[in-house]
Amino acid sequence: MFIETCIAPVNIALIKYWGKRDEELILPINDSLSMTLSTDEMCAKTTAAACSSFKEHRMWLNGEEVPFEENPRIMRCLKALQRLALAKGESLKFPLEWKLHIVSRNNFPTAAGLASSAAGYACLVYTLASLYGIADEELTAIARQGSGSACRSLHGGFVRWHMGKLEDGGDSIAAPVVSASHWPNMHVLILVVNDGRKKTSSTKGMQRAVETSDLIKYRAKYCVPQRINAITDAIKEKDFETFAKIAMQDSNQFHAIALDTYPPCVYMNDVSHAIASFVHAYNTAVGHTRVAYTFDAGPNACLYVLKEHVPSLLQALNKSFPNDNATNVEYFKGIPIDKNVSANASASANDDIILNGNFSFAINERNLLKYIIHTKIGLGPQRLNKDESLINATTGLPF
Amino acid sequence: MFIETCIAPVNIALIKYWGKRDEELILPINDSLSMTLSTDEMCAKTTAAACSSFKEHRMWLNGEEVPFEENPRIMRCLKALQRLALAKGESLKFPLEWKLHIVSRNNFPTAAGLASSAAGYACLVYTLASLYGIADEELTAIARQGSGSACRSLHGGFVRWHMGKLEDGGDSIAAPVVSASHWPNMHVLILVVNDGRKKTSSTKGMQRAVETSDLIKYRAKYCVPQRINAITDAIKEKDFETFAKIAMQDSNQFHAIALDTYPPCVYMNDVSHAIASFVHAYNTAVGHTRVAYTFDAGPNACLYVLKEHVPSLLQALNKSFPNDNATNVEYFKGIPIDKNVSANASASANDDIILNGNFSFAINERNLLKYIIHTKIGLGPQRLNKDESLINATTGLPF
Repeated sequence: MFIETCIAPVNIALIKYWGKRDEELILPINDSLSMTLSTDEMCAKTTAAACSSFKEHRMWLNGEEVPFEENPRIMRCLKALQRLALAKGESLKFPLEWKLHIVSRNNFPTAAGLASSAAGYACLVYTLASLYGIADEELTAIARQGSGSACRSLHGGFVRWHMGKLEDGGDSIAAPVVSASHWPNMHVLILVVNDGRKKTSSTKGMQRAVETSDLIKYRAKYCVPQRINAITDAIKEKDFETFAKIAMQDSNQFHAIALDTYPPCVYMNDVSHAIASFVHAYNTAVGHTRVAYTFDAGPNACLYVLKEHVPSLLQALNKSFPNDNATNVEYFKGIPIDKNVSANASASANDDIILNGNFSFAINERNLLKYIIHTKIGLGPQRLNKDESLINATTGLPF
Repeated sequence: MFIETCIAPVNIALIKYWGKRDEELILPINDSLSMTLSTDEMCAKTTAAACSSFKEHRMWLNGEEVPFEENPRIMRCLKALQRLALAKGESLKFPLEWKLHIVSRNNFPTAAGLASSAAGYACLVYTLASLYGIADEELTAIARQGSGSACRSLHGGFVRWHMGKLEDGGDSIAAPVVSASHWPNMHVLILVVNDGRKKTSSTKGMQRAVETSDLIKYRAKYCVPQRINAITDAIKEKDFETFAKIAMQDSNQFHAIALDTYPPCVYMNDVSHAIASFVHAYNTAVGHTRVAYTFDAGPNACLYVLKEHVPSLLQALNKSFPNDNATNVEYFKGIPIDKNVSANASASANDDIILNGNFSFAINERNLLKYIIHTKIGLGPQRLNKDESLINATTGLPF
């Protein structure tokens, strides 16, 4: 039995992917750009095993067995990897006919709507590539066929998914913009929002947008190319204010496109909009753009903020969004707050205004947030040691 | 003392006006199209008096004295009317130097955010024109300078505001598309939604949109001209389904543009979106597009529906948006429901599904709506008799 275990990160788009020009190959109508989050706080973990004795492909996701051969996206990724293994002419460790057992877990709640499929497919492709002994050059184009944004989770730091021009999607790949070490103090607060509404899936939402929105064509053709270049420059120059403004504008434009769809797709709710208003009010209070929000196809907010400003932001957040669980360990997850940094960071006059409680952004309701995850920029997928395996090497089944 | 009293209607845009190319003259960046609502349910009423003994211009709005000569928009309208009176060379009943007393009231709550300024300025201009004895050909270009959409309230039925090309705005006028009698069974339910948020004013919101939204230019140049023509044809042919679809698409696109603004403007809230979802679910349940929604720069919904379908729609609405005050006379205002029409209208199988309660669109919260106004298509402004005056002819002051 051959076994490989890997982890892959979540990525959060700053210039959004919305709309395909090819549904089957998952080819987008515009480039997108994301930041990869540290796997310390959130990641997908996958173990893949191949054995001559396995009767059929089997897969377990977050503890439950799920269809494998009936899932066209998984099979597409698997076949592309097998073709690559053959084409590369590498000496195969085991015959390609051997059936696979795959076990995958996210270390964060999938219910949070936090791009779990991107991390999941990136991890699947990376793990299978490791198992087959394939170098990872062409992997992003394969992961893309599992879940579009998965291609961006195969790199760390800031990553650009080039839409490409080829019909077969061979040039629709993700490439690093800068590595995580370029801007290591880039932190993220994920605000998980309570929400009970039924939402249109991303796949259906973007399909319907391409079919019915007039504005999406203009966005893809004119707005995105300009923004991608501008935010890339801002990232390279570590110009946070420009970076933040473009990120917020593109998040809003993505939701504008969703609303311009018929029937409309609505992913942000009143709490999401309150968070966006809070961010604008906070930036106005401190006198410059210190925090950026971005929202994916759900109500949760991702706030981008430099490490040194996290404590003061958190204080303002907790004041504006009071929560009965605020002191509960389950409410604030991820990187702990460094109290010393907190004291230093509050040295400026504007910070004092906020920390002294003079900044107010009043929301009458309590408990609007479910919990907060504090994380930061991170690396791409990693191979783990055998002792991290999710599969019992004797039985070939999940532990 | 010369006295005139008039009423003017509210209008609801179906193709939205959003964005000025000239802030002072109030010249829009695109045509818009609206339906005038019956003055039986909602109107502005204005009395204007001129007297040699009045010392200064004075104005009372909804019972409170408000600035007159300090209000540039009112003064602009007044001066334009006076120029017109002079230019027309009509025999003036009284010297233009005489000061004016103006009393104006809305018969509906201004707090409802229901385009009260449009009705108000239309009524002001129409009443002053009557007082000065001016025929009403050029009045829409004058009312436009008070509040852009006011120009559309000077006609009944469906009305198109042509953006015009001239720099002085002389051709930025409103003209009737069809009169109210063309489609007399066009009814409207206004759902007034509870909302406590601070909102960006229309003036500021559209100014910011023109400055910061990329999408607004495309909308104004390409989307609106096409939609105006298509909805005009649908109105002329009384093709409700096409009419409804375009109206909903344009409402959504307007809110998409507001969201694409930086910082974003958010006018619809969760309840507004729930109403939109309800409408789509209802139309799906009855098998065709029988109801259309449109939302202005606030959370309230205007539902367009033909008279014969009002009872069944109301029943579904009351079931989906349960309200403790549902049987209260204050909750359902305007045109009463004809129980006989109700019985006849429910003859079709789909209606029965809804009326029998099989249609469900579950919202867990009660009392999301403040109240409902039932109204319909209506006429333009009207002169009223002396006994309707709001000004005491002896004192020159409000009653």
